[in-house]
Order: sequence, then C-alpha cells, then structure tokens
Amino acid sequence: MKISIKNLHFKTILGILEHERTTPQTISVHATIWYAWDEHSFIDYADVCALLEMHMHSKHYGLIEDALKDLSHIFLEKYPQATKIKLKISKPDILPNAVVGVTHTQKRSKN
Amino acid sequence: MKISIKNLHFKTILGILEHERTTPQTISVHATIWYAWDEHSFIDYADVCALLEMHMHSKHYGLIEDALKDLSHIFLEKYPQATKIKLKISKPDILPNAVVGVTHTQKRSKN
Amino acid sequence: MKISIKNLHFKTILGILEHERTTPQTISVHATIWYAWDEHSFIDYADVCALLEMHMHSKHYGLIEDALKDLSHIFLEKYPQATKIKLKISKPDILPNAVVGVTHTQKRSKN
Amino acid sequence: MKISIKNLHFKTILGILEHERTTPQTISVHATIWYAWDEHSFIDYADVCALLEMHMHSKHYGLIEDALKDLSHIFLEKYPQATKIKLKISKPDILPNAVVGVTHTQKRSKN
Repeated sequence: MKISIKNLHFKTILGILEHERTTPQTISVHATIWYAWDEHSFIDYADVCALLEMHMHSKHYGLIEDALKDLSHIFLEKYPQATKIKLKISKPDILPNAVVGVTHTQKRSKN
Repeated sequence: MKISIKNLHFKTILGILEHERTTPQTISVHATIWYAWDEHSFIDYADVCALLEMHMHSKHYGLIEDALKDLSHIFLEKYPQATKIKLKISKPDILPNAVVGVTHTQKRSKN
Repeated sequence: MKISIKNLHFKTILGILEHERTTPQTISVHATIWYAWDEHSFIDYADVCALLEMHMHSKHYGLIEDALKDLSHIFLEKYPQATKIKLKISKPDILPNAVVGVTHTQKRSKN
Repeated sequence: MKISIKNLHFKTILGILEHERTTPQTISVHATIWYAWDEHSFIDYADVCALLEMHMHSKHYGLIEDALKDLSHIFLEKYPQATKIKLKISKPDILPNAVVGVTHTQKRSKN
C-alpha cells in the first residue's frame, strides 16, 4: 500500500534569506509512504500530516534539504511499518515566475 | 493497452470516524488497468466505473485500504483478460489543507 | 530527445455507441515520442499534431484501442527516426463524473 | 536530493518560423536536477532559474532541441555536484489546441 498526501500547505518559517527567517511563507508538502499493510499496521494519514506540520512549525528549518532529511528520519522512527518515504517541499510563492521544490526519498535501512 | 479512469467522483460512506459512518463524503477514484487487448477482450470503461461505484455504495467500507483490496479482487475476478490493476482512492475534503489518498496495485496471480 | 504533445483536443467521431457514430465529441490526445535527434532528423511537432488530427477525422474509429493501434503504426511508418510512441486518447465528456482514456505504447520493431 | 523547477515562464525568442524569430513568445521550462547533497554542495534554485532564463534570452535559440542540449551542457559545467539534469521546454501558445514541448535528459559523463 502507498499513502499519498498532496499539497499539504500552511505558512511557516523556512529558508535562509533574511526575510524568510522572519516572515512565514506558504509551503506545500507532498508525501508518499510505502508500507506493508495489515489491519494492525494501519497508518493514519491525519496523524502524518499533523506530525509533518508540527515539526516544520517548531524547527524553523533553514534549507529545504535539511528539513527533508530530518522529517524523513523522524517519520521512519515513528512508523516502523513504513518501508520508504518520499517527501517533497515546494515554495509556491518564493519566485515570481516558477514553483520550486526539493524531493528526498529515504528507504528504511536494514539492520 | 492501458485503460485509465481519472477522478471518478461521487459521495459515499467511507471511513472509520463517527461522522464518516453516517455522512457520505465525496471520494475520488483513479484506476489504471493493464490488459492484453484483442477485439474479443474489449473492456468497457463505463462498466468498470459502474462496478467500482456500485460496490463502494453497497459495502460502506471503513478503511480505504480494505476498499482497495476488495475492489481489486472483485475486478480481477470479473475481467480475466486484465493482468493488473492500480487503484487509488482519495478523500479530497476530509482535511482542510491537503488531499489524502491510498494506492494499491494488484497483479493477477499465476496459477 | 522526447517530444510531448499534451491535450491536443478537437471534436470528432469516435466510439461504438449509436450517438457516438453520429455526433462528434471532444477528444483529447496525449503523445510522447522518443527519437534520436540530430539536425537532419528533426520532427516538427505541428506536423505530428496535424497527422493525428487528420487521421482521426477521416477514419471515424470505433474503439479507442483501434485508433491507438492504427495511429501508432502510421506514425512509425512516416517517421523512421522515431524509436517509440506512447499515445493516449481520452474522452473528457463521455461520462458525467470521470475522465476515461486508453494508452498504447509501441516500439519500432527491429528487422 | 532532487531539485524541481516547475513552469519557469517568460517571453523570449525561440523557434524557426519567421514570426518566432522576431516576436518573443511565452515559454515554460521544467527542470529536474539530481545531486549529491551535503552542506557544502548546496545548489540555489534561484540561481539555476536565473541561469536558464539569461541564456535563453541571450542565445535566441532556433530549435528547442538545440536549446536543451546547450542549456544542459552549461548547467553541468557550472554545477559539478549535479549528476543529472532533465530539462523540458514547452510552448504553451504556439498551437491553438495543444501544448507542445521537448524533454532532454543528460547525465554527467564519467571521465
């Protein structure tokens, strides 16, 4: 099974430019989560959205790349039934004539 | 050949929250169907849409994951010429700031 | 190089239902064309659009599947520098609550 | 990590038709950039957008295919940390009933 969260959007602090450190901007998160589903391993999409939004609000990440690494790690720690996560964070309003984003895919490493 | 059905949408009962058991919500189904086509194996897209919608209306599924498993199974039983189905069910209105969905891909198992 | 033609749309006769044989409906064609480009092998996207549209207008295909097979064949005959074509034909208006389409991918067979 | 730039759009000279050589038209660029990220190898998406737009304005390319080859080369020269770039240039307004574009993917060649 694959859960997809599309265009989870909210205003938060994200970025390394001076005005980005002080003024929240709209960001958009796409997440795709692969997991081996059975009735005991159910992942609630609403919990995942809340987890991502909460960490972005509290961490005030600088680079999108740092946010992606940290959020993927936090997610895989919390959901042992997930085998892989693909996360994309976009900034729809930062450039006047393009939408820019960064994507990171992280598989659970085997022990 | 690959048939695609995009954004087949209707209101139905789907979900495990209390209000989801009593109030129909809009859901959106995407289906991709792979099949070996010849003139005798034609699959009518309108029949597939009707089949999916009818079962969702009658079964009142709880988890999207259960719906995906059951609908894939029903489809592959009914259409022996199909080799694979990918089904996605989304709930466009359940969260205020994201569209969430789950995708399941099922190949016909060989006997 | 890969040429993509998105949402080439026009009204034409396509379909096997009685009203589809007599009343043109809007159809939408997506084409992706792979080819080994050099300056002598240039494929003009406008010519490809004209070719697809002309054949659909003159042939009055019944099944989308027949149209896809025939158009892929015609295209690969006309453009020897193309190695593969993926064609999708959708009917955006045939169903009230979904967009349905069929996709066919054809590689040039080696002699 | 994968940077994506979607719908970077501006008016510029691009094309081989007579009116395309004299009248700027809106073009849309999509870029996907794969790179091995660490804190010293950060690629600024705004710089990439500026680079692409500047070269398209100054070079006045004829064929989209020529633009794609040249821009990919320039990009990989400037960003040694990038391993691959996929570039798509579309002309949303050149045809009345379709959006046409060309895509080129270039990997860094190993020495």
